[in-house]
Amino acid sequence: MTADQQKLLFAAYRLAERGELYRFEPERIAAEAGMPADSFGRCFAQEREFWLALHRLNVHLLVNDITRATDGMPPGRERLKAGVLAYWDGCVRTIPVRAIVRGYRKDPDILARLDRINWGFAHMLSMEMKKIGWERYNEAAQIAWFMAEGVVRLELEANGPLPDLRQTFWDFLAARPTRIGTPAATAPKTRPKAAAGVKAKAAAKPKSAARKPAAAAKAVKKRK
Amino acid sequence: MTADQQKLLFAAYRLAERGELYRFEPERIAAEAGMPADSFGRCFAQEREFWLALHRLNVHLLVNDITRATDGMPPGRERLKAGVLAYWDGCVRTIPVRAIVRGYRKDPDILARLDRINWGFAHMLSMEMKKIGWERYNEAAQIAWFMAEGVVRLELEANGPLPDLRQTFWDFLAARPTRIGTPAATAPKTRPKAAAGVKAKAAAKPKSAARKPAAAAKAVKKRK
Repeated sequence: MTADQQKLLFAAYRLAERGELYRFEPERIAAEAGMPADSFGRCFAQEREFWLALHRLNVHLLVNDITRATDGMPPGRERLKAGVLAYWDGCVRTIPVRAIVRGYRKDPDILARLDRINWGFAHMLSMEMKKIGWERYNEAAQIAWFMAEGVVRLELEANGPLPDLRQTFWDFLAARPTRIGTPAATAPKTRPKAAAGVKAKAAAKPKSAARKPAAAAKAVKKRK
Repeated sequence: MTADQQKLLFAAYRLAERGELYRFEPERIAAEAGMPADSFGRCFAQEREFWLALHRLNVHLLVNDITRATDGMPPGRERLKAGVLAYWDGCVRTIPVRAIVRGYRKDPDILARLDRINWGFAHMLSMEMKKIGWERYNEAAQIAWFMAEGVVRLELEANGPLPDLRQTFWDFLAARPTRIGTPAATAPKTRPKAAAGVKAKAAAKPKSAARKPAAAAKAVKKRK
């Protein structure tokens, strides 16, 4: 990418973020970038090329947000929380940018990219789910990702954050995993009942890492 | 829809379900329906019209499956379980049908229909979540729907059921809701800690309907 292309891209991004860009306005973007009005035609062969680059920039900045929010943290519940919050807030912050790129969301190149991004995010989550105590951590990461991504879908529709929906996500995320090998893969565990005080049943179950208090888990880690 | 259109539609559906239809083969479908080879042109003005009708039939049969599986059950965890299982199994059963309709999934009419279907399913789930004890039952239904739909997405990719992923869904679904008004909407509750035996803390919290055993909840209902 040339320096001039980048200048135009960042100018468009700034305009979009400020809510001042609703469609493709090459002269306006060039003006924001402090470049001649005909710069666009010289820098991008096709309008599509520009939208793909803007989408890539948006994803890049979002991943930056997440990386910054989780930098230096060990895998686990706290890092998961910080990462998901940065993801949600980043998505809400860039609603205007997403809105103008939306017309290109069905572009095969963007679809393929979204596919890779989804797998990347789900993979990031699997480290957290493993640490939290999920034996089926890949599956737990997939499900957590479906939830986190679903929150974004509704927040984009609502044009802002939905605190009740976010809280409900945390509620679900606090679920305790079953050990692999416990019977009846199709039957839902009636966890609320057990949690209400059927202690004998709970005590009979094998110990799970997820049930250890955080301090104990840390101690285990240090010993290694 | 005319009787001839229906005959062709059901014939195509049967062929697809048996895995014998991979693309638009009007003469083959007509043969399966026991109709003359040129029937298609007389019955459907456009190929698109036929695919839209096949998609509608597929959704219709899926909703039928769910209705049959949950017929006569009161709202709650058991009906939710039966409905979600019927939904998953119906989607897996119709993978070959979905595969041939896939090319039309970006059709605006199908997209609008999928949107309505998604809202319909999420709405169905909200009755269950309310009964299970979620105060934020609409949000809980949305999140449950994101999870259930996500399972289908991966099962379609995998071309069959994914038992570990399904079990993980039930694990998440067993999460206990927080009462509305408990502080820190952004912080995840460290439920595993509380569940491990921090009884004093749990006892101090206000009683939640979700924590009552099913029998007690039923008694409450009868009193009304």
